[in-house]
Amino acid sequence: MGKLYVVGIGPGGLDYMTLKAVKAIEESEVIVGYTKYIEFINPLIKDKAVVSTGMRGEVERCKQALELAKDKVVSIVSTGDAGIYGMAGLILEMREDEEVEVIPGVTASSAAASIVGAPLMHDNCNISLSDLMTPYDLIKKRVSLAAEGDFIISLYNPKSHGRPLYLKECMDIIRNHRQGNTPVAVVKNALRDGEKSTIFTLETFDDSEVDMFSIVIIGNSKSYIKDGQFITPRGYQV
Amino acid sequence: MGKLYVVGIGPGGLDYMTLKAVKAIEESEVIVGYTKYIEFINPLIKDKAVVSTGMRGEVERCKQALELAKDKVVSIVSTGDAGIYGMAGLILEMREDEEVEVIPGVTASSAAASIVGAPLMHDNCNISLSDLMTPYDLIKKRVSLAAEGDFIISLYNPKSHGRPLYLKECMDIIRNHRQGNTPVAVVKNALRDGEKSTIFTLETFDDSEVDMFSIVIIGNSKSYIKDGQFITPRGYQV
Repeated sequence: MGKLYVVGIGPGGLDYMTLKAVKAIEESEVIVGYTKYIEFINPLIKDKAVVSTGMRGEVERCKQALELAKDKVVSIVSTGDAGIYGMAGLILEMREDEEVEVIPGVTASSAAASIVGAPLMHDNCNISLSDLMTPYDLIKKRVSLAAEGDFIISLYNPKSHGRPLYLKECMDIIRNHRQGNTPVAVVKNALRDGEKSTIFTLETFDDSEVDMFSIVIIGNSKSYIKDGQFITPRGYQV
Repeated sequence: MGKLYVVGIGPGGLDYMTLKAVKAIEESEVIVGYTKYIEFINPLIKDKAVVSTGMRGEVERCKQALELAKDKVVSIVSTGDAGIYGMAGLILEMREDEEVEVIPGVTASSAAASIVGAPLMHDNCNISLSDLMTPYDLIKKRVSLAAEGDFIISLYNPKSHGRPLYLKECMDIIRNHRQGNTPVAVVKNALRDGEKSTIFTLETFDDSEVDMFSIVIIGNSKSYIKDGQFITPRGYQV
């Protein structure tokens, strides 16, 4: 009897995996994943079989993982939380009768937030700016409603070569609802090699360093910067 | 020289802590936290000093943790992610010159999602229904805008004795924007002792089992139930 673990490995640094994720990898005979993400967990893989595929091979990758899981213990890995923009959905959509267990992880917005302070302390949302599978009009509508509702906003996949202007345009939408001194964090490679973060405001924001490995966090109307830390108050009387 | 770790211990089960969180607890001389949450990590505490306080003692608890961290290594623990409705914000607001490191964890909505399938696979938001520090009108406004924007919605602190009707009222707001067959999950004590989950639809939803230890997740317009699993498609052509 096989089994498929859908594993969120967290941001990438081994220390930020859960113990359960480590155990699932160790127990597995085969590891399936996007080549770059497999590298993050190399020290755990040792002499296990690896099936790694390039970007945009998601459907094929999930098909292989499910097929292998019919008689082997297999882990398919996503960075962050496998259940937030990860592989958990596709696996469960395609599953027939294979045994599947989803193991959650630290999602990218949580990882990015921890580096710059405590920006996500109040009601917050995650929005992906990738239009591969979501119409851009719907993305802009969500950004606008989230800004109107004073949600803290974490932008996933904020910028790529194919859509260099979306981030600028979405920040303009947010500026219609928030003051110029609202903090904005750009965090690249949070909690893994190559980590870099900058705290701007809506007024000073510059997207030149933003790429697909970045998360952009925009504060709510109460967020502020103190000693270089981006803080959103929960509301306690201090 | 002291140091303060602000540690998100994840949902409660030890297996769902990150390695970094475990190391921080092990390295600490003093552990500070709400009594119930300290119990979750008892096996790691051994003979360390513990400062535990009841609910609503947050400001006092943070003050003590910062004071102790002037010359000791201290961990202050939150369940889930310390940076999402946890102690990271208050600590950084009150910090003077103490060394502070925030360690993120698996937030409650991720934990709850992993048990019922893959509900959070698309743009999603976290909203707390607690009105202790947020006006109820603002909470309802956020629920309405999130529903209008077709976000998947995770409700934290969905119900307590002091506000038995908020959840019902907020679900009515959501019904104005979503169809009756939209999946709704109630997950109690996700990934810790006493775990229990039920999947409803907006039509069949019953809040009688919901309490402060529950998370309620409402799907978007594309979410569906398959073989007892709550799935929101990311949008891949399967």
